Amino acid sequence: MSQQQPDSAKDKPWGGRFSESTDAFVEEFTASITFDKRLYRHDIQGSRAHARMLGKTGLLNTTEVEQILSGLDEIELSIEKGELEWKISLEDVHMNIEARLTDRIGIAGKKLHTGRSRNDQVATDVRLWLRDQVDGISHELRRLQRALVEVAEREADTILPGFTHLQVAQPITFGHHMLAWFEMLQRDFERLQDCRKRINVMPLGAAALAGTTYPIDRIYTAELLGFDYPARNSLDAVSDRDFAIEFTSTAALIMMHLSRFSEELVLWTSAQFDFIRLPDRFCTGSSIMPQKKNPDVPELVRGKSGRVFGHLFALLTLMKGQPLAYNKDNQEDKEPLFDTVDTLFGSLRAFADMMPHVQPKPEKMRKAAMQGFSTATDLADYLVRKGLPFRDAHEVVGKAVALGVETERDLSEMRLEELQAFSNTITDDVFAVLTLEGSVAARNHLGGTAPAQVKQQVIIARELIA
Amino acid sequence: MSQQQPDSAKDKPWGGRFSESTDAFVEEFTASITFDKRLYRHDIQGSRAHARMLGKTGLLNTTEVEQILSGLDEIELSIEKGELEWKISLEDVHMNIEARLTDRIGIAGKKLHTGRSRNDQVATDVRLWLRDQVDGISHELRRLQRALVEVAEREADTILPGFTHLQVAQPITFGHHMLAWFEMLQRDFERLQDCRKRINVMPLGAAALAGTTYPIDRIYTAELLGFDYPARNSLDAVSDRDFAIEFTSTAALIMMHLSRFSEELVLWTSAQFDFIRLPDRFCTGSSIMPQKKNPDVPELVRGKSGRVFGHLFALLTLMKGQPLAYNKDNQEDKEPLFDTVDTLFGSLRAFADMMPHVQPKPEKMRKAAMQGFSTATDLADYLVRKGLPFRDAHEVVGKAVALGVETERDLSEMRLEELQAFSNTITDDVFAVLTLEGSVAARNHLGGTAPAQVKQQVIIARELIA
Amino acid sequence: MSQQQPDSAKDKPWGGRFSESTDAFVEEFTASITFDKRLYRHDIQGSRAHARMLGKTGLLNTTEVEQILSGLDEIELSIEKGELEWKISLEDVHMNIEARLTDRIGIAGKKLHTGRSRNDQVATDVRLWLRDQVDGISHELRRLQRALVEVAEREADTILPGFTHLQVAQPITFGHHMLAWFEMLQRDFERLQDCRKRINVMPLGAAALAGTTYPIDRIYTAELLGFDYPARNSLDAVSDRDFAIEFTSTAALIMMHLSRFSEELVLWTSAQFDFIRLPDRFCTGSSIMPQKKNPDVPELVRGKSGRVFGHLFALLTLMKGQPLAYNKDNQEDKEPLFDTVDTLFGSLRAFADMMPHVQPKPEKMRKAAMQGFSTATDLADYLVRKGLPFRDAHEVVGKAVALGVETERDLSEMRLEELQAFSNTITDDVFAVLTLEGSVAARNHLGGTAPAQVKQQVIIARELIA
Amino acid sequence: MSQQQPDSAKDKPWGGRFSESTDAFVEEFTASITFDKRLYRHDIQGSRAHARMLGKTGLLNTTEVEQILSGLDEIELSIEKGELEWKISLEDVHMNIEARLTDRIGIAGKKLHTGRSRNDQVATDVRLWLRDQVDGISHELRRLQRALVEVAEREADTILPGFTHLQVAQPITFGHHMLAWFEMLQRDFERLQDCRKRINVMPLGAAALAGTTYPIDRIYTAELLGFDYPARNSLDAVSDRDFAIEFTSTAALIMMHLSRFSEELVLWTSAQFDFIRLPDRFCTGSSIMPQKKNPDVPELVRGKSGRVFGHLFALLTLMKGQPLAYNKDNQEDKEPLFDTVDTLFGSLRAFADMMPHVQPKPEKMRKAAMQGFSTATDLADYLVRKGLPFRDAHEVVGKAVALGVETERDLSEMRLEELQAFSNTITDDVFAVLTLEGSVAARNHLGGTAPAQVKQQVIIARELIA
Repeated sequence: MSQQQPDSAKDKPWGGRFSESTDAFVEEFTASITFDKRLYRHDIQGSRAHARMLGKTGLLNTTEVEQILSGLDEIELSIEKGELEWKISLEDVHMNIEARLTDRIGIAGKKLHTGRSRNDQVATDVRLWLRDQVDGISHELRRLQRALVEVAEREADTILPGFTHLQVAQPITFGHHMLAWFEMLQRDFERLQDCRKRINVMPLGAAALAGTTYPIDRIYTAELLGFDYPARNSLDAVSDRDFAIEFTSTAALIMMHLSRFSEELVLWTSAQFDFIRLPDRFCTGSSIMPQKKNPDVPELVRGKSGRVFGHLFALLTLMKGQPLAYNKDNQEDKEPLFDTVDTLFGSLRAFADMMPHVQPKPEKMRKAAMQGFSTATDLADYLVRKGLPFRDAHEVVGKAVALGVETERDLSEMRLEELQAFSNTITDDVFAVLTLEGSVAARNHLGGTAPAQVKQQVIIARELIA
Repeated sequence: MSQQQPDSAKDKPWGGRFSESTDAFVEEFTASITFDKRLYRHDIQGSRAHARMLGKTGLLNTTEVEQILSGLDEIELSIEKGELEWKISLEDVHMNIEARLTDRIGIAGKKLHTGRSRNDQVATDVRLWLRDQVDGISHELRRLQRALVEVAEREADTILPGFTHLQVAQPITFGHHMLAWFEMLQRDFERLQDCRKRINVMPLGAAALAGTTYPIDRIYTAELLGFDYPARNSLDAVSDRDFAIEFTSTAALIMMHLSRFSEELVLWTSAQFDFIRLPDRFCTGSSIMPQKKNPDVPELVRGKSGRVFGHLFALLTLMKGQPLAYNKDNQEDKEPLFDTVDTLFGSLRAFADMMPHVQPKPEKMRKAAMQGFSTATDLADYLVRKGLPFRDAHEVVGKAVALGVETERDLSEMRLEELQAFSNTITDDVFAVLTLEGSVAARNHLGGTAPAQVKQQVIIARELIA
Repeated sequence: MSQQQPDSAKDKPWGGRFSESTDAFVEEFTASITFDKRLYRHDIQGSRAHARMLGKTGLLNTTEVEQILSGLDEIELSIEKGELEWKISLEDVHMNIEARLTDRIGIAGKKLHTGRSRNDQVATDVRLWLRDQVDGISHELRRLQRALVEVAEREADTILPGFTHLQVAQPITFGHHMLAWFEMLQRDFERLQDCRKRINVMPLGAAALAGTTYPIDRIYTAELLGFDYPARNSLDAVSDRDFAIEFTSTAALIMMHLSRFSEELVLWTSAQFDFIRLPDRFCTGSSIMPQKKNPDVPELVRGKSGRVFGHLFALLTLMKGQPLAYNKDNQEDKEPLFDTVDTLFGSLRAFADMMPHVQPKPEKMRKAAMQGFSTATDLADYLVRKGLPFRDAHEVVGKAVALGVETERDLSEMRLEELQAFSNTITDDVFAVLTLEGSVAARNHLGGTAPAQVKQQVIIARELIA
Repeated sequence: MSQQQPDSAKDKPWGGRFSESTDAFVEEFTASITFDKRLYRHDIQGSRAHARMLGKTGLLNTTEVEQILSGLDEIELSIEKGELEWKISLEDVHMNIEARLTDRIGIAGKKLHTGRSRNDQVATDVRLWLRDQVDGISHELRRLQRALVEVAEREADTILPGFTHLQVAQPITFGHHMLAWFEMLQRDFERLQDCRKRINVMPLGAAALAGTTYPIDRIYTAELLGFDYPARNSLDAVSDRDFAIEFTSTAALIMMHLSRFSEELVLWTSAQFDFIRLPDRFCTGSSIMPQKKNPDVPELVRGKSGRVFGHLFALLTLMKGQPLAYNKDNQEDKEPLFDTVDTLFGSLRAFADMMPHVQPKPEKMRKAAMQGFSTATDLADYLVRKGLPFRDAHEVVGKAVALGVETERDLSEMRLEELQAFSNTITDDVFAVLTLEGSVAARNHLGGTAPAQVKQQVIIARELIA
């Protein structure tokens, strides 16, 4: 880390009682401007509302309010143009902006901090910023859900083996599988919206920790900023980071889901499964092995899940030992939160871009479904319908499978007499039951894998995301 | 771990295709009965509803249903009497109960598993169980909230120093502080209820992963069990553990809050702070130091927070690498979840019992609030009202504080002329501003620490938890 | 949790200054006897050494020492017979044992606690216990390493595809793959031994936190207990739990490795890979799907890794906020540590039992290695030897692979003229390069996959674990 | 994230078999150059050694080697001057450097990749880089240890209260307390050195996963790079990230220790404890409260501990699900590792700078030690020396303390007759025992808090860090 000459503590917004300047390395080590400058737009948004509220309540006069508002406009513009130089000696985004405002408009700038503190200001900034991010993330999530519904509808009849324990279990439809992913994302969407309610509460007005002696109007400020209501307790307002933790835990669940999707996509693109094709533009190659085409996007997303889990634990650990109210530890909330947002947004975007272009290979999936005795349960159910208790039917089929393993044949490839040797209730109608189509079509109830059910679920899914 | 002679694989519910018995250590290592027996009541609850549904749809006849229901009643009773011997060779709670049922009622017992699998059965059991636990936990949480509101009302006028950075910041009221904790718990309560919605969805009918070929009526079963609706996708239904993770992350937030309370209670009972007294019955002593009286409950709860964080991490890690649908890994979901519930319930109960008996020491808190220049902000605000911009007022007060540090006097102990040396706008009315009562009373806006606001918030709090 | 009538605080070893009994629920909530009784043997071991030291230094007379030693023998025996009733009112293993000792031998029992505290006693117990566990775990780990070396030697020439990105990369040998796992475990073994050094330091004599006023001889006690040396600082000695965290992080790495092995075993037993056969006795079946044979052991071990990661996180979080010296939080160190030991030991044991019986299917692995252009790198290297720069050779082969993908043929299946169309330096000797045997044999340098290297590494591996 | 026009996949080092360009967002999402450019110096270091080895074994001629070496020199210089433009289309630091090398020196540049892959190259780079970082961190850690030893020596006789459960326990010396911290860091130093052994093993030569067909000399390369030996198994070499996890867990322990120090420093600078003074240059103020002087450095370091814990969990999670050998997930190892190094280095540096300037306030500490009956244990020990069993002595003192609590007096302030009412063995010599100096001096054994012991430990500490 590079160093710079420290300004005098006298130049700090809090230098009055200090007798020596901040140590240069300490100044750099404790400054947040290198990362919190990202909040500049929301910091200015909050300052505008605060200034208008101070005007409404008479704490600032009209001229002062106007000076502040136009000063903030100019600063925002200069930041967007990349012209504003962020100074470490000014510690954070709040002081960098306020110092420039005072440079420009003089004494009115110094009055902007009336009735607030950096403690409530930063909590407000982060909530405004995160609210926007949640909306952006929700949008990408919905885009991915739409892609899954499209694929599900198109592939409602496509059969692949369903797995448990990564062993072939029963035939299912590709559309049904896509809708399983859809359901996970639907819960994620609902969790994001539940979380958003708790983000959208305004700390501003809590000041340092106890509120302020000025006759502020917090309801007015909340309205200007689109907050549902002002936080009811000032101590809590400045020290609460629940919203960041709840968001990050919601993000961790989404990343867990994307990691599970990824695990399947990686398996499905292996030569051994070969169930799907990923377009070249979502893959990369090897610098040494000329034949390689690697499923980079799912692998990377799978890897990124651990990163978000780590941020969640960083935030929980950060908060658990702090007495009220604000402590400097809290400054450490931002980087994990920022990186969680970036990671989640990028991962969802990559998946939403990629999923419409995943190409199933129906013949490969069908062939795999023919292996592994995937219709054994259908035979057991058949026997139950013929009158056997389920547990006995299970045992009969188990023995038939043992023969199949030994002779390397599927149940559908055995002769009727062979099957009858295991149970004399079996008759010629058994072979219809042992087909893949028969198997999937038979699971025709709410939530089942039958194509008819998948088509029904597509309609419901479209309503959910409408 | 002790070993036992393995039963033959032939005795297992799945032994048909196996040619050798399970290894004795493997049997023990993979069995879940040592911990999942805890679910017996909810397993039986689910089986009752499943049997009634099978009766309604004609898959079982009336006699069979009655045999099953009375058989389950007997088994439940024998478990509650501690008479049922759980067998590791029967692997889990489901098979232990079903095997006993068949022993008692014969062939009808073997038919109970028609149209379901252990995969959907265990997911149903855990959701039924967790739903009950969430209700029990919510009850303890509300009890703690009520205790806090009582204390807040009683101590609305009691003054203590508010801290930031563990440095005296501004005077606040004890009631206000209690309500900060109340607010955290209020968010926790809302999160629990949001989570409960997603717990209360029924997996049953998903069978192994794809649904079943029997004409089951999942909506009827869901009604019998009080579930809001059946899960919409069978693959998702058997593999989803989001509800366990979401609950555990909600629990982690509650434990984080209790850890923060604990941190404060431990500080407040130290000889250095000495703000409160904990009754002897919530403390223990030392085997070597006869004078010790240790705040065990808050210390232990603080320590237990890490445990729940760990369980959350275990569950996220557990799920992230699994392709669909069910994998044996999932068996590892139970112990972290069970211990999270126990830890959370016990911690809330201990706090709800203890908080009504915490005795503030007003004179000690008052004395502490007189130290540390806690009314310095009030002086700055006073100067602003006299016309100084906030930033200039801040600097003036900083210099006055520096004098105070040097001469070991509070601002209220300085002479008027001394104060006027820093700013000639100061007049005799300044001393009213520098009192503790003046300071807290002045923060009289929504969310502020003024006694009037605290009393108002107590009313609102009572409405929230009514 | 059940409740019991509390004993009076007066009966506690610390009751002198207390005026009321401990709350019944608090007594149960704060007691550790339900889990720390597991340490009884090491607690008694420590007490024996402490008593002998007190005898040597004259703090106890010979009769007292003998009474204590024979009293402890009797108590140990009665615990092992299951005859000692553990009492929650006596809080922990230390007090349960000491109270019984005093019941039996009277006043000498009361003198045993001279010069020690529960703070140093429990730290000593846990270190003695963990030292034994590390030795047991190291033994299982070595057993697994030996199994891997045996398989590696036997399968030094067996070819399977090596994967990167789960895409076929280059042919490797099964023996080489087994030795990759061996290497991970070798690092694990070294880490365990490094950790053991830091476990084997004696806290006893630190007393509550500051040492004791009695003229104790800590070097003598350390010798009796086999500790390398007494802890150098009493404050550190009672509050240090580094050894538990370091052990748990070592365990987390081992579990991570076993999880990676498991991931591969699960893949390899899938119908799609089908590279190995697991004996039936390490697998279980399905209650609904009669054909299933599931790789339970690797799945479960994979799932258990998250559990240990969670415990590591619990311990780090537990310690990070505690000021010196001992705090009640520390009681929460035991359950995560105990469960880590059990999980790790069981997982290693299951693997050490299972690995010698894993049966590779050479023909299936060979067939898979023929797919996926696994010798493409060999062709590129061939071209380099003919004079092309590596990057150009890579591109040539890439184009040949593209043709192969299009025409569904391996490089070895192309005609010489076809290959020459991509580079005219290719001659008839290219086909030897494109065989699997040629490919693996060519990687014949230290660490390479050639059978000759594998055999060499087997010799080195045997030396490492001798 | 901004986008850029993608280069054609044809321009990639692996483009041969690809038919379409990488998607622009995917290119950005999967590129690592934005963070791995930090490794440039070590990447060039590795390439130099690789080129020299290729020269020694005849795979490159002398001219080619010289061209490569001087080309790399130029590139290193241009990077250090900030003149090299890093391109996302070139994916990573390896390709960015190699592409520039080929631009400069032509065909010889293309030959540098002979016998290696990016998989072994990146593993080598990270190990070289981390080895340097471990050395830098060890240096800061030693600097902090030296500072603690200096303070310990200076304050060997300074008395403060020792705490357990944050309740006053027994008097200790400030020097003794500093040496407790020293001991933690000593273990940390040893762990770092143990970890360094396992970092210092060379992956280079493992190529993609299986070794290479070229006759490379890995022992020579290892010598050139200062590695202890080449990795023994190529599959393991490219996929192993144990060293990163072990380092991060070592870092987590160090941060846990610094967090504990911080917790104490924050307490000690509170008005309630007021045990020490931190120089102004290590503190900052408040924008609203003019009197505040906040202990920012310890608060921030305490907060940063969670961040490193999070990185540890990210890395464990990252690795646990990966089959061998290299997967793209592994790219996610770098950012957590880099941030861990930066956080740890900065935290140690700030502490090493700050600790020599922490000023104890002996009179405040002494006063606090007089409160809380800190010599109660001394009275119990006194009674034992008079013949009471320890447990009885404990109870006698407990009753005396109860009187003290009631009458607000310390034991040393009671009259002899009052004390004798609790035990008639007490005589006039008891008052010497009840002084602070008497108490600390009496704990005069190895590891005890007596000034004489502290001075002895200072000598040993100096030897340990010599």
